[in-house]
Amino acid sequence: MQQEQQDATAEAASTGPEPPATDDHAAALDELQDRWRRALADIENLRKRHAKELDRERASERARTAAALLPIVDNLELALSHADSDPGVIVEGIKAVHDQAVAILGRLGYERHAETGVPFDPSRHEVVGVVDDPDVEPGTVAKVMRPGYGEAERQLRPVAVTVGKRQE
Amino acid sequence: MQQEQQDATAEAASTGPEPPATDDHAAALDELQDRWRRALADIENLRKRHAKELDRERASERARTAAALLPIVDNLELALSHADSDPGVIVEGIKAVHDQAVAILGRLGYERHAETGVPFDPSRHEVVGVVDDPDVEPGTVAKVMRPGYGEAERQLRPVAVTVGKRQE
Repeated sequence: MQQEQQDATAEAASTGPEPPATDDHAAALDELQDRWRRALADIENLRKRHAKELDRERASERARTAAALLPIVDNLELALSHADSDPGVIVEGIKAVHDQAVAILGRLGYERHAETGVPFDPSRHEVVGVVDDPDVEPGTVAKVMRPGYGEAERQLRPVAVTVGKRQE
Repeated sequence: MQQEQQDATAEAASTGPEPPATDDHAAALDELQDRWRRALADIENLRKRHAKELDRERASERARTAAALLPIVDNLELALSHADSDPGVIVEGIKAVHDQAVAILGRLGYERHAETGVPFDPSRHEVVGVVDDPDVEPGTVAKVMRPGYGEAERQLRPVAVTVGKRQE
């Protein structure tokens, strides 16, 4: 990025907005023609550099995200290596792995959402059922069927919920 | 991307490589000056569009990768919800989650590597120990201490191994 900024300055200097200062129209025409062709070449180069950079950045973002999740796989293996021990120990180990996975998703920008009792919000909730229960406030989340991750533009998926039936 | 290609064609048409066909030098100068300024403006716009597109693509690649791993978290929760049942059932469930995680990493382009007996390869292996054992071929992988994922440019991490000692 830094390099690109410097390139930009260099290009601006060589093809800057000042018209050629000469009284000879033919020479001025040549000079301007040359600048214009260089600007067109710059456009072509920018496009090519852009396409390459996009590919590279996509790959490196994918690697960064996937690498963040490797500890989950490692710790699942660790938990399984204790499969012969006390089942309580296994369950504790798996709970820790699960909490770790949720924490990693949070650090990647995708917070877990699983709140009940909050008002139904179509931008965050996906209704998978309606409950007719006097103990549930109408139009609020009765039960979370599947947690959601992220919000607004960073939403990986909405919270799947059942909602209290609105009274007639 | 499609839209950008069309823009490129449109720009090429408006600022194409043919010099203005006129005998009037002053008019030609004006025309060329105009084309050149438009090319400079195109460069500026390309840069801005590029920066925005990079941000957008990074975010969407991160979301795609993280979303691919949500089923792991879901299935960990499912396994934990059976914590009161037969420990054998829990262990089977966790094994399935682990296999799923490895399969997802493979689909993202990061294959698991944990082979023993293969020749030591510094591009794929990280030596964490040397074993002096007549049953282990010198210079080959004796034991995998931690599996690796991906290879060459897509390597998330090398395979951590112990290697058979080279005989004097």
